[in-house]
Amino acid sequence: MFKIYYHPMSFPSLAPVFTASALGADYQLEFVDLGAGQQSTPEYLAVNPLGKVPAMQEGDFSIGESAAIMRYMARQYESDLYPQEAQAQAKVDQWMDYVNHHIRGPVASVHFNRSLAPLFGVEPDMASLAKGEQMLTSNLPIIETALSKHGYLCGDTMSLADVALVAALDPIEMSKIDISDYKTLSAWRAARRKDTFYTDVHSHYGAEIDL
Amino acid sequence: MFKIYYHPMSFPSLAPVFTASALGADYQLEFVDLGAGQQSTPEYLAVNPLGKVPAMQEGDFSIGESAAIMRYMARQYESDLYPQEAQAQAKVDQWMDYVNHHIRGPVASVHFNRSLAPLFGVEPDMASLAKGEQMLTSNLPIIETALSKHGYLCGDTMSLADVALVAALDPIEMSKIDISDYKTLSAWRAARRKDTFYTDVHSHYGAEIDL
Repeated sequence: MFKIYYHPMSFPSLAPVFTASALGADYQLEFVDLGAGQQSTPEYLAVNPLGKVPAMQEGDFSIGESAAIMRYMARQYESDLYPQEAQAQAKVDQWMDYVNHHIRGPVASVHFNRSLAPLFGVEPDMASLAKGEQMLTSNLPIIETALSKHGYLCGDTMSLADVALVAALDPIEMSKIDISDYKTLSAWRAARRKDTFYTDVHSHYGAEIDL
Repeated sequence: MFKIYYHPMSFPSLAPVFTASALGADYQLEFVDLGAGQQSTPEYLAVNPLGKVPAMQEGDFSIGESAAIMRYMARQYESDLYPQEAQAQAKVDQWMDYVNHHIRGPVASVHFNRSLAPLFGVEPDMASLAKGEQMLTSNLPIIETALSKHGYLCGDTMSLADVALVAALDPIEMSKIDISDYKTLSAWRAARRKDTFYTDVHSHYGAEIDL
């Protein structure tokens, strides 16, 4: 049984949750109260010395960082979401990192400064917001091209890279990030959000706290 | 034979080069002229459709993203730099991602705005620079604690995570990032920069272009 420490507004947290769901794994969610600083308590640091969400615990083993958790869970299930053949696995690694660095990162910049900063009463950094939008304009066409060629990022079946992409884009309605110009990506994302790996977790980003 | 497409000033490029060197692999460097936009030419995009450095080519197989390249090369050599046991591998995955997201990212923000922007005649983004420095102040103590406990990030022998850390910190002299308060990290880094995997690549960041 995987215990996943998470916060529903932390969309990097959602990627391992979607993965556990896609694997059909037995998992349990542990809410970490980031607002109250729970991630810095000795109890939490004993689980994840990195002091961040997500983290995953299985028996007396625990790790942090969403992509590391996703790989570990998929390997435990010997799942095709993370193929064992070296070149196929390398392609999944490549796209997971591309999504996390070049899509999730800029989405986070826009999301934080446009949506979360006002909620928290923090002054938004408009330069960071603009840079995030500019990076998405540069990087989303790469995703559009890959999906148009293959159906999924790494071929004709879903992989951890696709799960990472679904999580990376989860808050875009709340952040008013418009991807409608990317027709293949938009249709692909709509389809994934109807897949049971997604609907078993939530109906949309923020549903857990009635947003 | 691994052909590694890189630019010497791109320190994410250096991580797979150090890895190839640590593996004792037969490798060849291909300079990509980022200043001339070579990363966007059809010839380069055929190798790496992501349009970035680094990329790696082995026969007719090629991938981008530094950590994906590092994992692939280490697997081909069945190297202990990337252990095969699931929990040990997950720890390396965790620390590689921690280093790349939480150390390399902020070093890049400081390095770009303090050192490269003036070289390129670009206006530096002082808020981005300050945020990078603040993130390093938050995150370097996590690295210091891990190295103090284990000798290396994932235990008492070197792994891909350590190679990633050496690359992530490579430009800190040029960027005037001071890590001397982190005694263990400073001593560890000095020792790694005397290891042959490093000295066989270069004497210091920028040596290739006489900086």
